[in-house]
Amino acid sequence: MKYLEDIVLHNPRFSPGTHTVSTEEIKRFAAEWDPMPFHLDEEIAKLSPIGKLFASSAHTVAIGLRLSHDMMEKDIAVIAGLGWNDLRFPKPVCPGDSLRLKSQVIEKRESQSKPDRGIIVSLNELFNQNDELVAEYKITTMMFRKPA
Amino acid sequence: MKYLEDIVLHNPRFSPGTHTVSTEEIKRFAAEWDPMPFHLDEEIAKLSPIGKLFASSAHTVAIGLRLSHDMMEKDIAVIAGLGWNDLRFPKPVCPGDSLRLKSQVIEKRESQSKPDRGIIVSLNELFNQNDELVAEYKITTMMFRKPA
Repeated sequence: MKYLEDIVLHNPRFSPGTHTVSTEEIKRFAAEWDPMPFHLDEEIAKLSPIGKLFASSAHTVAIGLRLSHDMMEKDIAVIAGLGWNDLRFPKPVCPGDSLRLKSQVIEKRESQSKPDRGIIVSLNELFNQNDELVAEYKITTMMFRKPA
Repeated sequence: MKYLEDIVLHNPRFSPGTHTVSTEEIKRFAAEWDPMPFHLDEEIAKLSPIGKLFASSAHTVAIGLRLSHDMMEKDIAVIAGLGWNDLRFPKPVCPGDSLRLKSQVIEKRESQSKPDRGIIVSLNELFNQNDELVAEYKITTMMFRKPA
């Protein structure tokens, strides 16, 4: 089992594969969860500042989550996710884009109140096929410390 | 058109309807985007700290986004979303839960660099049918100021 003490800071890892986004997937996700005209209709999207169909931010986050499953460490003493922070979407995600995830732990600390556990903060970055950053966000997770 | 100057702070509004979460929806969302066993299988979920099937955090955020569409103001001079912050999930979302969204602008300021625009921060809170907070997050948005 991998505990707080075993976590190495600033040691980036990449998802083994990529997720290629289709027009159909962009429209299907948006139709159910974020029905903005520029996520659903190419003609309307042409008139937007982006100039073409692009994915909902929530869809982009979902893709990052999906990619994270392929790089999860199996024997890690996670207790619970505590929250997400600082989500930014510097570039749009468009049909045909292939995204990969880069993830690293950027902070860890022991709990002040519970000596058996601690907190880690992971920085997740999604890049497209041109190595442009399309999304970044931090995830805070509670995990166990090594048993004394 | 509604500009930065027209935005009233701390004036909460509620989604007109609710979104009731089904077992099928929890499993379908998780299978595509967040295939953790406790989002997919009731028997495994019974052994988790939650003790029953519950929705992916990303699914909960997607529901909040969907509900926000029913309370969007049509003529608002939004330029772009800048990011999401401080996402917290204080209670699980389980099959049969009916969620409603409460949203209010908690901050607004003029841009320092671009005098025609400004920034607002909205606090979004999702409550279940027992008025328990299940998710909260802030959305930062750029919008136009009233033309001089």
